[in-house]
Amino acid sequence: MTDRSTLRDLSAPPFATRHIGPSEAGRARMLEAVGYESVADLVAVAVPEAIRTRGPLNLPEAVGEAEALAELRALAGRNRVLTSMIGLGYHDTITPGVVLRNVLENPGWYTAYTPYQPEISQGRLEALLNFQTVVSDLTGLDVAGASLLDEATAAAEAMTLARRASKVKTDVFVVDADALPQTKAVLATRAEPLGITLVESDLAGELPECFGVLVQYPGAGGRVASFREVAERAHARGALLVAAADLLALTLLEPPGEQGADIAVGSSQRFGVPLGYGGPHAAYMAVREGLQRQMPGRLVGVSVDADGRTAYRLALQTREQHIRREKATSNICTAQVLLAVMASMYAVYHGPDGLRRIAQRVHRHAAVLAAGLREGGVEVVHDEFFDTVLARVPGRAAQVVAAAAERGVNLRLADDDHVGVACDEKTTTGHLRAVWEAFGAGQVVVEDLDRVTPDAVPAGLQRTSDFLTHPVFHAYRSETAMLRYLRRLQDKDIALDRSMIPLGSCTMKLNATTEMEPITWPEFASIHPFAPAGQAEGYAELIATLEGWLAEVTGYDRVSIQPNAGSQGEFAGLLAIRSYHRSRGEGGRDVCLIPSSAHGTNAASAVMAGMRVVVVACDGCGNVDLADLAAKIDKHRDALAAIMVTYPSTHGVYEETIVEICERVHEAGGQVYVDGANLNALVGLAKLGEFGADVSHLNLHKTFCIPHGGGGPGVGPVAVKAHLAEHLPAHVSAAPYGSAGILPISWAYVRMMGGDGLRQATEQAILSANYLARRLAPHYPVLYTGRDGLVAHECIVDLRQITKETGVTVDDVAKRLIDYGFHAPTMSFPVAGTLMIEPTESEDLAELDRFADAMIAIRGEIAKVASGEFDKSDNPLRNAPHTAECLTADEWTHPYSRAVAAYPVPGLRDDKYWSPVRRIDQAYGDRNLVCSCPPLEAYED
Amino acid sequence: MTDRSTLRDLSAPPFATRHIGPSEAGRARMLEAVGYESVADLVAVAVPEAIRTRGPLNLPEAVGEAEALAELRALAGRNRVLTSMIGLGYHDTITPGVVLRNVLENPGWYTAYTPYQPEISQGRLEALLNFQTVVSDLTGLDVAGASLLDEATAAAEAMTLARRASKVKTDVFVVDADALPQTKAVLATRAEPLGITLVESDLAGELPECFGVLVQYPGAGGRVASFREVAERAHARGALLVAAADLLALTLLEPPGEQGADIAVGSSQRFGVPLGYGGPHAAYMAVREGLQRQMPGRLVGVSVDADGRTAYRLALQTREQHIRREKATSNICTAQVLLAVMASMYAVYHGPDGLRRIAQRVHRHAAVLAAGLREGGVEVVHDEFFDTVLARVPGRAAQVVAAAAERGVNLRLADDDHVGVACDEKTTTGHLRAVWEAFGAGQVVVEDLDRVTPDAVPAGLQRTSDFLTHPVFHAYRSETAMLRYLRRLQDKDIALDRSMIPLGSCTMKLNATTEMEPITWPEFASIHPFAPAGQAEGYAELIATLEGWLAEVTGYDRVSIQPNAGSQGEFAGLLAIRSYHRSRGEGGRDVCLIPSSAHGTNAASAVMAGMRVVVVACDGCGNVDLADLAAKIDKHRDALAAIMVTYPSTHGVYEETIVEICERVHEAGGQVYVDGANLNALVGLAKLGEFGADVSHLNLHKTFCIPHGGGGPGVGPVAVKAHLAEHLPAHVSAAPYGSAGILPISWAYVRMMGGDGLRQATEQAILSANYLARRLAPHYPVLYTGRDGLVAHECIVDLRQITKETGVTVDDVAKRLIDYGFHAPTMSFPVAGTLMIEPTESEDLAELDRFADAMIAIRGEIAKVASGEFDKSDNPLRNAPHTAECLTADEWTHPYSRAVAAYPVPGLRDDKYWSPVRRIDQAYGDRNLVCSCPPLEAYED
Repeated sequence: MTDRSTLRDLSAPPFATRHIGPSEAGRARMLEAVGYESVADLVAVAVPEAIRTRGPLNLPEAVGEAEALAELRALAGRNRVLTSMIGLGYHDTITPGVVLRNVLENPGWYTAYTPYQPEISQGRLEALLNFQTVVSDLTGLDVAGASLLDEATAAAEAMTLARRASKVKTDVFVVDADALPQTKAVLATRAEPLGITLVESDLAGELPECFGVLVQYPGAGGRVASFREVAERAHARGALLVAAADLLALTLLEPPGEQGADIAVGSSQRFGVPLGYGGPHAAYMAVREGLQRQMPGRLVGVSVDADGRTAYRLALQTREQHIRREKATSNICTAQVLLAVMASMYAVYHGPDGLRRIAQRVHRHAAVLAAGLREGGVEVVHDEFFDTVLARVPGRAAQVVAAAAERGVNLRLADDDHVGVACDEKTTTGHLRAVWEAFGAGQVVVEDLDRVTPDAVPAGLQRTSDFLTHPVFHAYRSETAMLRYLRRLQDKDIALDRSMIPLGSCTMKLNATTEMEPITWPEFASIHPFAPAGQAEGYAELIATLEGWLAEVTGYDRVSIQPNAGSQGEFAGLLAIRSYHRSRGEGGRDVCLIPSSAHGTNAASAVMAGMRVVVVACDGCGNVDLADLAAKIDKHRDALAAIMVTYPSTHGVYEETIVEICERVHEAGGQVYVDGANLNALVGLAKLGEFGADVSHLNLHKTFCIPHGGGGPGVGPVAVKAHLAEHLPAHVSAAPYGSAGILPISWAYVRMMGGDGLRQATEQAILSANYLARRLAPHYPVLYTGRDGLVAHECIVDLRQITKETGVTVDDVAKRLIDYGFHAPTMSFPVAGTLMIEPTESEDLAELDRFADAMIAIRGEIAKVASGEFDKSDNPLRNAPHTAECLTADEWTHPYSRAVAAYPVPGLRDDKYWSPVRRIDQAYGDRNLVCSCPPLEAYED
Repeated sequence: MTDRSTLRDLSAPPFATRHIGPSEAGRARMLEAVGYESVADLVAVAVPEAIRTRGPLNLPEAVGEAEALAELRALAGRNRVLTSMIGLGYHDTITPGVVLRNVLENPGWYTAYTPYQPEISQGRLEALLNFQTVVSDLTGLDVAGASLLDEATAAAEAMTLARRASKVKTDVFVVDADALPQTKAVLATRAEPLGITLVESDLAGELPECFGVLVQYPGAGGRVASFREVAERAHARGALLVAAADLLALTLLEPPGEQGADIAVGSSQRFGVPLGYGGPHAAYMAVREGLQRQMPGRLVGVSVDADGRTAYRLALQTREQHIRREKATSNICTAQVLLAVMASMYAVYHGPDGLRRIAQRVHRHAAVLAAGLREGGVEVVHDEFFDTVLARVPGRAAQVVAAAAERGVNLRLADDDHVGVACDEKTTTGHLRAVWEAFGAGQVVVEDLDRVTPDAVPAGLQRTSDFLTHPVFHAYRSETAMLRYLRRLQDKDIALDRSMIPLGSCTMKLNATTEMEPITWPEFASIHPFAPAGQAEGYAELIATLEGWLAEVTGYDRVSIQPNAGSQGEFAGLLAIRSYHRSRGEGGRDVCLIPSSAHGTNAASAVMAGMRVVVVACDGCGNVDLADLAAKIDKHRDALAAIMVTYPSTHGVYEETIVEICERVHEAGGQVYVDGANLNALVGLAKLGEFGADVSHLNLHKTFCIPHGGGGPGVGPVAVKAHLAEHLPAHVSAAPYGSAGILPISWAYVRMMGGDGLRQATEQAILSANYLARRLAPHYPVLYTGRDGLVAHECIVDLRQITKETGVTVDDVAKRLIDYGFHAPTMSFPVAGTLMIEPTESEDLAELDRFADAMIAIRGEIAKVASGEFDKSDNPLRNAPHTAECLTADEWTHPYSRAVAAYPVPGLRDDKYWSPVRRIDQAYGDRNLVCSCPPLEAYED
């Protein structure tokens, strides 16, 4: 048998063949359609020679899925899971199994996109509305948002909100001395470039003139005290009161809103979200009536659909950075949806009584703990607390913490003389005994202490107001009922588990099971962000390795994975530039050039980093107008700090001039920031750091397979050349390693793809985009192409002329795509009146064709509008999406048939997604703003 | 604060409050409706005093979900996962992550019921049809079934099939000496009571007169040889040829059908199904044309729906035991659907090329392994093999096996002089090296050996025929595509994650996530059934503990969890009775009394155990007719072996006379077998072993929360009084502990419920059934009630008079329930023309009411048929279920409206399940039998 294969020949096909959608045969058909012999030929033409990298990526050879899991198990084995009683805003919690399995481990939830298309997002929008209701009820404030990145950045956003809303002319913001240390650090990072002066205070006496005050409630040291008087003093000065409050404590304590807080922020982590070495978790913000239009981030609101049925969607979007750009008040452009959903479901499952019981039990453990310490002769600093006991042990703190660790418990080393001990949902009397032993507090009979020890919440500060009275928090107490509720919501939505999500610039590709599995292993999920380094060696290696791989992929010298969203990566990168100029005595450089085609976040980030935005024009092809660039550089030469460009451009084109742009900016003393949003078009083919960029942020939730989670989590590492490395800020996120808990996803992706696989993925993404462009071009004009009419990894189809001629808008096409079972492409970005399509490498040819067929069929429908065969205003496009309910109504008054509405292509008869609502009235919802669960009567017809 | 709660007061509510659906308040409302003050009052009346147990269950106090998981992790930690190269029909395999997460860990798949209602089971029926196609293609036989319990019992079923089909008058069945040892053992267990003589043979020479021959292909010792001549010799004698064949090997080897096999059996475990310490796995059976009507177990076939659309359903059901009773040819009444689905998806994901490559790699490893052994001076017994190498090491076998174990590899100790080494999908060259070392075979360069070593499959026996040519095995190669395929299929079905499944006698209750989580941990999932006991200490303790708990719950002295289905438990229990009588010199006792209301399986099992079935009449109330019982006992007094009764009766009634029945049978020298199918009505209230029964089987997949998996797996432990313990058969299933891999589910359930929780569950099940009975009684006659008109845990509503008056049948009601979003209750069992409803304790009041409302609304629709308001034949009942497609058709010709069809109750407008097909034509499918994937053209309209 001479043709016998060897073991090597018979190896399992690489993971890349599962990640990349098209087969060899499919690829050949696509190449033929695009008109190239090989992928290499296509890439040689599409990607400018000037930016191509030489040689393959220097990454370890790819391993299979089983091997990658084995390596991750080995890394996990090097993390040690101790009982965490460190506190400081991170508390262990029990994730209900039904939520773990059916949300965090279910692609129906985690592969969904941000709910910009509300009709196909009703499930997660309802979950987010529940979240907002939880926050609003517990904080006693009127309007809550759909989550922020972490407590510390939420506090920073509150600070700037206060500054905007206050009428006082001062730059002073007062911070509770007992605020969380990481909150103080992030506030400092954010305050400096904005010229805000932070004043730390114990808040006991007079306040300085200030625009806002932040109170930690309870304090980092555990103390619980009313801040009613602080709020009164702040208001008397014209300042706003921000309370950073623990959600679980608020089930027992008088809520911030009732004490006069204007804004509340905090974390919802302890509502069933794993510690994950610091994240991702959903932070919250709530504000009193009057501030909601100034609130950063996403806000879910209630509106109605075309049939007048209650429906949810994102509210007040005109506040947001992608619309307000340099006038934006924040650069936040995402939320922590998946985690907010989990936290909301924890509240739904436990209900108000369950949450109160959990809080009481946590508190009781703390009270008994304190009593036992006192009995053992240990000084307890505060008499009134919720879950955290601060013990004074002069000179002995480190020794106590070490003794506790020996007993399997991590405590907080507050300083040489103080130890903090925080109780949580998982605390048992066994843990209390271990802590007492560690303090040398001797033997205590817990039951006896429990009987005689009073509660430690001030009598006058006990909560009297109801919360979570809405029926949703009372209907799902059994696991069966909860399971069905989760399934019902999930079924309303389109996520990647149903069909492709061809969102330009969002890179909605496979989030492989093997990548996802490790994040719920206890050794990754149950580590506190401030656990001693020796307990997180597995994480340390995983993070260092991943940062190294990302540096190799991007051609930079140093990567930090701390930023927990792309926006935070941008901010960190711009701060590095700022610091760099200052270190060279060029602190006056504060102009940031931004092309008109840029994502709005860029401008918002620049402003946050203390820069002035100067817009550079684009030419008719969507490229940076070099003449205008030259003019702007000339004009601002001495003040030029940086240029921010996206590459490939937001138009999905490899600009030929990028190298020249970099040179010109450098020549004028500026730094080059390249937004890595479109990195999926470059990996393995070109390196940002090689063709002139100084700094970038990446989006691990795009190129590196972290799922979008329905609108978060994200990870936005910042990558810099060596000269900027020392200028990277240390505190742009609350946790040292940001959203460390999901980094195994990207690690596994790179490990299983290897350099070849990553390059192949990029090549396929380019081929797929060009294939779609070629299939659609006869039907829709394709905007902005590069050499030989090629696009990069996405393409823009132009509806403007069609809209002018027929009245059919991008909105109509987007909504009609729902009837065809698809999520719409990116609408009207970067160009109004267009759709931007990014297929990614993970979609196979059958799905690409199904999408192209749908778009072409829709074009046929548009033609019927043009020809008059369809009515101008009563046609399947304008009326889309059609619900099953409207299609089965006894009366059908439309001039087109039900079958035309429901089954415009035959495949839909085998597999039909039914939109749960018809088109949603955006304006109605903004005019009648409701951002918490509406009463049941609202659902009646 | 005198009213302060203590830590104990603040403990988390027990798991029972999540498992049991109704809240305290709901329970109060239900009690009011049923007319009792308390659950205790209700139970005191409903459950006869004579059978009540005294005192609480002696079980450990319940723990919470987190604690139970911690205890299971500790048990898991006492299992040691070594690399398994033992073989013998169990091979390690890589479960594709996408299948693991989206099938085995997804309630949409695992909580489904057997697809008796085909309209709401199209997803899993398609998956099973894929499975049948895989088996049929690979074995080269015409018709394959939807899976059997394990390879050994499948071989036993093949033996009896051969006996029925052969025209030769002999009781001899010839078994390959190289058959798997566990197959031989189970064949022996099955043969004895049927008077079959097993003759072991190396099959080299003449065959004795026999009705059938079983060939192991490849042999247990690894040898691969053609059995074409054996088949010819068998056929010449009028005997059938059964091939027990390895599915993976068949991708390379000439298939059984092409060598003349009439029947093929085997396991599909190595197609991605975890070892699980022996199960559950899906066995297969395939037969040549002509034998399909004699095949045991489920068979999926293709038919059409009312609109002529291709649709799937169970075929040839009239063959099955529940219809043929004592004439049944097998007692098999379930399959291993969940595992068959997994195996089929493994084939779908890999396709024929992928499977062939995996097989070639396995084979290559074996070939290189053998070459290395030979090179090291070790004698290799067979020159031709697929994956298993048998080495001869005179006197050294145990030492070699021990040396391998030290290197982390388990080998097979075949005898003192022989060691078996089996390669599998996970084998690496590292494993080969460890094995060579263990044999002392010295250093070998794998790559060199690989290059020079020829394959070891006989040239003449290489497969030349195609397989898996159907498009479904070529369409889903990327994980994204596979994920969507799984989601699409799942979405077609109703499982417990959508709505209640009120199937009488099937106990479709919560399968909690916490119960399910451990089964996919490697320490439970990756243990070979023949791993040394010292590597499975965790399993040993878990099994012993669970058996003890089950004994306590049932009042028996000894429990064996080996039987991997209720039918096997029945068979084992009856064999114990048989052996008991024989041991006392009363071998002539062979009459088994069975009431006319019994499940058909009882009679089939009795026949398999060598007993004669005598039917005892039931009275008008559904109870055993005591006069007839007395007469039958008198008539068969000397031959009386046993009575088999179900308690509570299959009518869902606590028969008052059960104690008397037991006494009378005992007095006549018979044993009492109580079928434990309805144990959910007894746990904590009464113990079978206390009120007179000698033996029972339980259904862990009913009362003890193992999910039904869409029609398997099940576990059917047999429980006996002390005098029968020594008579339990040792080999009713292939694996020593049957479906050990899913026992953690029942362990966790009992651990988290404790004695109180279990009793409360039973009480709630009784209350819920009575609540439904009271709500439905004004609308439908409720058959068979006990004292005070109470039922046990289920109730029967009688449609017979309604059918007579209106023509509306139980089928019409069942199918109309689909339009209301429900799975139908049990149809026409135990009484034709009725529906049996079992709500279980896990459904909350809202769901019970939603179901009752649906049933009452349907009754209103029936009334309209009666009154003439609805047409007799063209009405929403007869036309149910309605698909979205038929409801959105442009033409609507029915005399009732679309809205009446689609939304008969308002709640459906918020949450509507759409049946993927209309009513399926059963007869058409049986007339035109197609049991593998139909060509795509079949789907065209």
